[in-house]
Amino acid sequence: MDNKFQKIRNDFPILKQKVNDEPLAYLDNAATSQKPQAVIDEIVRYYQNDNANTHRSVHTLGERATEEYEEARGKVQKFINAPESREIIFTKGTTDSLNLLAATYGETNINAGDEIVVSYMEHHSNLIPWQQLALRKHATLKYIELTADGQLDMDDASRKITDKTKIVAIAHVSNVLGVTNDIKKLAAITHQHNAVIIVDGAQAVPHQPVDVQALDVDFYAFSGHKMLGPMGIGVLYGKSKLLNAMPPYQYGGEMINFVEKYQSTWTDIPWKFEAGTQNVIGAIGLGKAIDYLTEIGMQNIADYEHELVSYALPKMLGIPGITVYGPHDSTVHNGVISFNLTNLHPHDLATALDMDGVAVRAGHHCAQPLMKYLGVVATARASFYFYNNRADVDQLLQAIQETKEFFKV
Amino acid sequence: MDNKFQKIRNDFPILKQKVNDEPLAYLDNAATSQKPQAVIDEIVRYYQNDNANTHRSVHTLGERATEEYEEARGKVQKFINAPESREIIFTKGTTDSLNLLAATYGETNINAGDEIVVSYMEHHSNLIPWQQLALRKHATLKYIELTADGQLDMDDASRKITDKTKIVAIAHVSNVLGVTNDIKKLAAITHQHNAVIIVDGAQAVPHQPVDVQALDVDFYAFSGHKMLGPMGIGVLYGKSKLLNAMPPYQYGGEMINFVEKYQSTWTDIPWKFEAGTQNVIGAIGLGKAIDYLTEIGMQNIADYEHELVSYALPKMLGIPGITVYGPHDSTVHNGVISFNLTNLHPHDLATALDMDGVAVRAGHHCAQPLMKYLGVVATARASFYFYNNRADVDQLLQAIQETKEFFKV
Repeated sequence: MDNKFQKIRNDFPILKQKVNDEPLAYLDNAATSQKPQAVIDEIVRYYQNDNANTHRSVHTLGERATEEYEEARGKVQKFINAPESREIIFTKGTTDSLNLLAATYGETNINAGDEIVVSYMEHHSNLIPWQQLALRKHATLKYIELTADGQLDMDDASRKITDKTKIVAIAHVSNVLGVTNDIKKLAAITHQHNAVIIVDGAQAVPHQPVDVQALDVDFYAFSGHKMLGPMGIGVLYGKSKLLNAMPPYQYGGEMINFVEKYQSTWTDIPWKFEAGTQNVIGAIGLGKAIDYLTEIGMQNIADYEHELVSYALPKMLGIPGITVYGPHDSTVHNGVISFNLTNLHPHDLATALDMDGVAVRAGHHCAQPLMKYLGVVATARASFYFYNNRADVDQLLQAIQETKEFFKV
Repeated sequence: MDNKFQKIRNDFPILKQKVNDEPLAYLDNAATSQKPQAVIDEIVRYYQNDNANTHRSVHTLGERATEEYEEARGKVQKFINAPESREIIFTKGTTDSLNLLAATYGETNINAGDEIVVSYMEHHSNLIPWQQLALRKHATLKYIELTADGQLDMDDASRKITDKTKIVAIAHVSNVLGVTNDIKKLAAITHQHNAVIIVDGAQAVPHQPVDVQALDVDFYAFSGHKMLGPMGIGVLYGKSKLLNAMPPYQYGGEMINFVEKYQSTWTDIPWKFEAGTQNVIGAIGLGKAIDYLTEIGMQNIADYEHELVSYALPKMLGIPGITVYGPHDSTVHNGVISFNLTNLHPHDLATALDMDGVAVRAGHHCAQPLMKYLGVVATARASFYFYNNRADVDQLLQAIQETKEFFKV
């Protein structure tokens, strides 16, 4: 399989460059992914041939743009196995999708005394919208604890989710700990209590097969740019009966039926939630990314990344003075590895690794409550995608070694 | 000048195609603009060389992306002569910018009995957010009337804007009537009554020099895609003292200082309003579009488009059975011409024009209250940009003539 994935790497022009005279080892994929030439070509093709505003037009370019945009919606639907294409809302990204939910579903369904359940591993984008909603509504925010090795404590989940719970908002895959949560089981618990489950899938959809029907989630959010797609496009999946009952988020063109002087009525989903000119090529480019991912196969990608982690994780754990956060068992660890070196600030570590061409992230990874929970201020984080290979891992390990020698830590 | 603009046309690859065996005459620029090769090349360059997430990184690609993104902010600042770069918020587009304002400034400053003043020529994106805010807050929405020839009635503006007024929300240029409103005078009236003026500049910034300090506006919104930039990027300018006092709109990564379990604090403007991964290449591409527009000169563009309208408008008015909405005096008419033919539905008209390669829009143009005011259901609309020329106008006139003959109207 490695051979096939070696060839795939050639599809990504950005990876061919050197950084600080070393080959670029791009290990910041949890922040954003690189784009294959096929997606870049699609953007060029669109702007050189079909660019127009959608839905408002009877002219040829407008009809082409509209058709391609709605075709992209269908690709997303199929990719996550949503029952209906109208359940796919195009947004700016995961953050936009989750804020939309808090401002519409949350605003209309949460009352004083209600409970919203999150976990300690949430990214700020799936935490602050619920925290602020709870403050506005005098509702209670509850946190599901983690196990000692950094997995979600499912027993605690069963305790925290009760009949008072109205919303469970949870990450599918942690952007720090490299763990996948058992969303299917969490959904079952949530539904036993007649609550809805909202899943932040930003770190999951790019890396593994996701089937929203099999998981039985109510809402599922993810970003295009983390899965080879253009920037500025994201997705919100929602069950149609829930989306239909929600008020609009933004007001403007194309989300209305009738606008009178003092009142208005709204059109149907998905367009009710797509006010104004949409990022048409964002959606079409995401569709192209989905074509590309589907051609490789999401299970193949998951398997390959898992092989890479199985290669990298034991070697990293063997480095003296390293702390790796999250499970140390590579069978339950995804391609996100957060770590620190004793007596070295992660920013200095990341800067030193960059000198050797290795791009990793350092910071709180937009998860300050988790950092506090782990008892750290920040970590370094290496995150893989299917275009990475063992040479990238070796370069990372070598660079860590050199950094340790340089800083004498 | 026409010669220079003829050469410019070659920069736009999409315009070289034929539609229905005729040269494409793209006259739907009020909906979206086409992209010069320089902007397309910039997108390719970014994705092939510098793509990364911004602000969260110390690695080389991340630093490059961040630098280019913030440089783009500086270009926007200079382009509209904003006092400070932190007064430039990147959004998804005009609709996003205006909804942000209604949900933050509007939500915190409008109370029962307050008045919000709009006009009959507002696009839905600068109307429904205020209409719905007024409904939520039991405030009053008031409409400035139009003169008989479709200009803003400034006497009525002086009557409608009173000490009860808290917000005046007004288009700089109408997307239907082709008129420019006297924003400087409206701002002065608004400020006499201690209200704020919010300007929808979507149809102005692409076509004429805009100086937010000279206009003395409090907020100003526009879209990248209507001014040669990529889709999915827009701008909100606001006076820093107002932006500083506003709560955030969306919650997520990079807009925070500290996130505790049950409360959070926010970072400074502009980032307070830029939650989550931004459309980095959207901003950089808009910066490239601004370089391109600046090279030509916005006054030259305004002058050229005015020449084109002066050529087109009298000829259109001379067609038997045509109704042109908005002023018939080309000295006060911009490059947006809305019209109908007696006894022909505008959709049929637009479809027929498309058969002759002419792309115009037909519909209510997201301005239903204006349609009602004009006593029509819909209109056709031809809208020009600086890459259009007299040949496009002649093709439009010829196509209208052929349509009249075909439908015998």
